[in-house]
Amino acid sequence: MSSETLALAKELISRPSVTPEDEGCQQVIGERLAALGFELETMVFEDTTNLWARRGQGRKVFCFAGHTDVVPPGDVNDWQFPPFEPTIHDGYLYGRGAADMKGSLAAMVTATEAFIEKHPNVDADIAFLITSDEEGPFINGTKRVIETLQARNEPIEWCIVGEPSSTDKLGDVVKNGRRGSLTGDLTVQGIQGHVAYPHLADNPVHKIAPALSDLVNEQWDEGNASFPPTTFQVSNINAGTGAGNVIPGRIDTQFNFRFSTEVTAEELKQRTEAILDKHNLKYSLTWKLNGPPFLTDSGGLIEAVTHAIQDECGFETELSTGGGTSDGRFIAPTGTQVVELGPVNATIHKVNERVKADDLDKLSALYLRCMENLLC
Amino acid sequence: MSSETLALAKELISRPSVTPEDEGCQQVIGERLAALGFELETMVFEDTTNLWARRGQGRKVFCFAGHTDVVPPGDVNDWQFPPFEPTIHDGYLYGRGAADMKGSLAAMVTATEAFIEKHPNVDADIAFLITSDEEGPFINGTKRVIETLQARNEPIEWCIVGEPSSTDKLGDVVKNGRRGSLTGDLTVQGIQGHVAYPHLADNPVHKIAPALSDLVNEQWDEGNASFPPTTFQVSNINAGTGAGNVIPGRIDTQFNFRFSTEVTAEELKQRTEAILDKHNLKYSLTWKLNGPPFLTDSGGLIEAVTHAIQDECGFETELSTGGGTSDGRFIAPTGTQVVELGPVNATIHKVNERVKADDLDKLSALYLRCMENLLC
Ligand SMILES: [Zn+2]
Ligand SMILES: [Zn+2]
Repeated sequence: MSSETLALAKELISRPSVTPEDEGCQQVIGERLAALGFELETMVFEDTTNLWARRGQGRKVFCFAGHTDVVPPGDVNDWQFPPFEPTIHDGYLYGRGAADMKGSLAAMVTATEAFIEKHPNVDADIAFLITSDEEGPFINGTKRVIETLQARNEPIEWCIVGEPSSTDKLGDVVKNGRRGSLTGDLTVQGIQGHVAYPHLADNPVHKIAPALSDLVNEQWDEGNASFPPTTFQVSNINAGTGAGNVIPGRIDTQFNFRFSTEVTAEELKQRTEAILDKHNLKYSLTWKLNGPPFLTDSGGLIEAVTHAIQDECGFETELSTGGGTSDGRFIAPTGTQVVELGPVNATIHKVNERVKADDLDKLSALYLRCMENLLC
Repeated sequence: MSSETLALAKELISRPSVTPEDEGCQQVIGERLAALGFELETMVFEDTTNLWARRGQGRKVFCFAGHTDVVPPGDVNDWQFPPFEPTIHDGYLYGRGAADMKGSLAAMVTATEAFIEKHPNVDADIAFLITSDEEGPFINGTKRVIETLQARNEPIEWCIVGEPSSTDKLGDVVKNGRRGSLTGDLTVQGIQGHVAYPHLADNPVHKIAPALSDLVNEQWDEGNASFPPTTFQVSNINAGTGAGNVIPGRIDTQFNFRFSTEVTAEELKQRTEAILDKHNLKYSLTWKLNGPPFLTDSGGLIEAVTHAIQDECGFETELSTGGGTSDGRFIAPTGTQVVELGPVNATIHKVNERVKADDLDKLSALYLRCMENLLC
C-alpha cells in the first residue's frame, strides 16, 4: 500500500492545478472511486470544477473533503526541484501541493480502497467532496456544492477535511473548529487642504487616531476552552497624496477580526461602530463576513479521530481552533461534525513545499482507522 | 506711468518661465535697472539664474526681492485665456504669474524709476534680488544669493518681498513674518505576519495609534501676539501590502509642524521623540527644517510700509504671519527687516490667475511711497 499513496500523490502533484484549475486531478481520483462503486457527479460552477462522489445510499454519510487546487509556485528558480515535478529527496516528497493537499487526497483514496477491501460488506455511506477553488475566491467551490446538497436534502453527518493540521509531527494537532473571520473596510472623511492652513481643512488622520487607539486596546472577549480571545488587526491604512504640504481628504483602513464563539459578527460590528461614533467620525464602513466560527467539540467523529491517532501514533492529539479559515466553515453550519486532519503544515504556500514520504502512508492508515472507528 | 507697469507685467508674463526657467525675464528687468545706474550681477547656481542689482554704495541697503519663475499652468484648456498670452478682460490682467509675482516685479521696476526721477540726488542704496527658483526646490535661488552676499559682507537692511500678501483688496494684509516649517518622516517598525497568527507578528499600526493620538492632541504652544499657535499635521500615512490577511511590517508617516517663535525646532523634535519613546516604539525619524520662524515686528520698514498703505489706500493694514513659507525665510535670519507686500492672492497657483489691472499701478505707487518714507 505504501507505494500506492505516494504514487497517487506524485501523479496529482505533476498536474499544475493552480486555482481555479483542476488539470484533471478530479478525473484521476474519480476513476479510482468509480472502480470502488462510487457514483460520480461533477459540479461545474463558473470557472470551478467540483467532484461529489458517493457510495451507498440511505445511511448517515461519512465524507472526505479536500481540494485539488494549489497556490502559485512563485519564482520556480527559488525551488530546489521544479514545483510540478514531484521529487523524492532525503525521505521527503517535494512539490507544490505535497502538503496542501494532494498528499491528503492520495491518502483518502488509498484509505478508502483499503477500507472497502477489508470490509466489503460493511453497511456505510462514504462520500468525497473535492473542489478546485479552496485557495481562491471561495465562491464556486465547497460553498456551492454544499448549497446543492442542502437543496436536495442530502446531509453529511461526519466530515474529515484533509487540510494539513499537523505542526511538528503527523497527527499532533487536529483542528476541530475555526475562528470566525470578519473584515471591515473603513473610510474616514475629512477635508483636504494645505498644511499651512489647517483651519480650512479637517485632517482625517487626526480624527481616526484616537478611535484607532481605542479599537486596538479593546478587549473583545476572553475566548473560551475551545477558542483563544478574539483578535483585531489592521491590515492596511493609507492616506495622503504623497506631497508633504497637503492635508489628506480621507483615510482608508482595512481591518480583520478573528473571532471566537463568545461574540457574534453582529456584536463586533455594533461595538466597532459604537467606538467610531463615540469619536464623532464621518465614515463609511463595509463589512464582509468571511465565515462564522464553528466548532465540533463532541460526538462520534472526534472520538473516532482521537482514538485513531492514539492507536496509530501512540500519543494524544491536541484539538485546536487556531490558524486561518478552511472550507470547514461551509460544511459545519449544516450540522455536520467536521474535523481537519492532515500532514505537517510547515512548508505550505512556501517554496520547497514538502512532506515526509512515510507520512503519506501513515496518514492513509490513520484515515483508514478513523473510518473503521466510525463506520464498523 | 500706469501703462508702463502694465506693459512690463505683460512683457514678463508672455515669457513661459516655469521653475527653474527664467526665459530672459531677468534680462528685461536688468536692462531697465541698468538704465537707472544699477550694477548688475548675474549669479548662476546649477539650473538657476539669479539677478543681484545694486545702485549706490556704502549706505544701508534697501532691497526689492522677488522671483521670475512661475508654477506650471496645468491643462491650458482649462484657462479662459492662454496662460502665457497676457490678456486684459473686464479690468483684470490674466496670465500665469500675474499675481505671483510678475505684476509685483513690474511695479518694483516702475516704482524705482519714479523714485529716482523724483529724487535724483537722494543718498540711498537700492538693490534688487531676483531669483528663478522660488516655486521650486529653493536650493539655488535666494538662499545661495544671500550666502554669497553674506560671504562678502554685503548686508541688506530693509527688504520688501513682492509676494501677493493681500487677501481681499490691495494692501489689506502685509506679511511681517512667517511661521517655521519642520517636517518629520517617521517609520515605525513591527513584524509582518498573517492576521490569523497575530501572536507571531507585531502590528506597527497598533503601536503607532496611541502615539499618534497623543501627538494630535498635544498643545505645542499657545502662539503669541504675532503668531497663531503651532500646528501639527500628518500629511501621509501608509502601511499594508494591500492584502487583507497580512499584518504590515512597518508604517510610514510624514508630518509637518508650522511653528511660532514660542518654540524652537529643537524643542519640537525633542517633544515629539519623547512622546514616541513614552509608547516604546521602535522607530526611525528623520527631520527636515524647511525654515525657522521669522518676524519683523518693529523698525523703520514696518513704519514705512504701514504708513504708505494708510496714505495711499486710506486704511490700516493688517500685519500677518499666516500662510506658507516664502523666500523671506532666507533673508530675515541675516538680520534684515523683511516684509511681504503684493497684490491679492486669491488666484495664485490656479487656472485663470489674474490681478486687477489698476492694482498694478496702485502697487507701484505704494512701493514708491514706501521708498520715500524709508529713504528720503
Ligand atoms: Zn489547503
Ligand atoms: Zn511667489
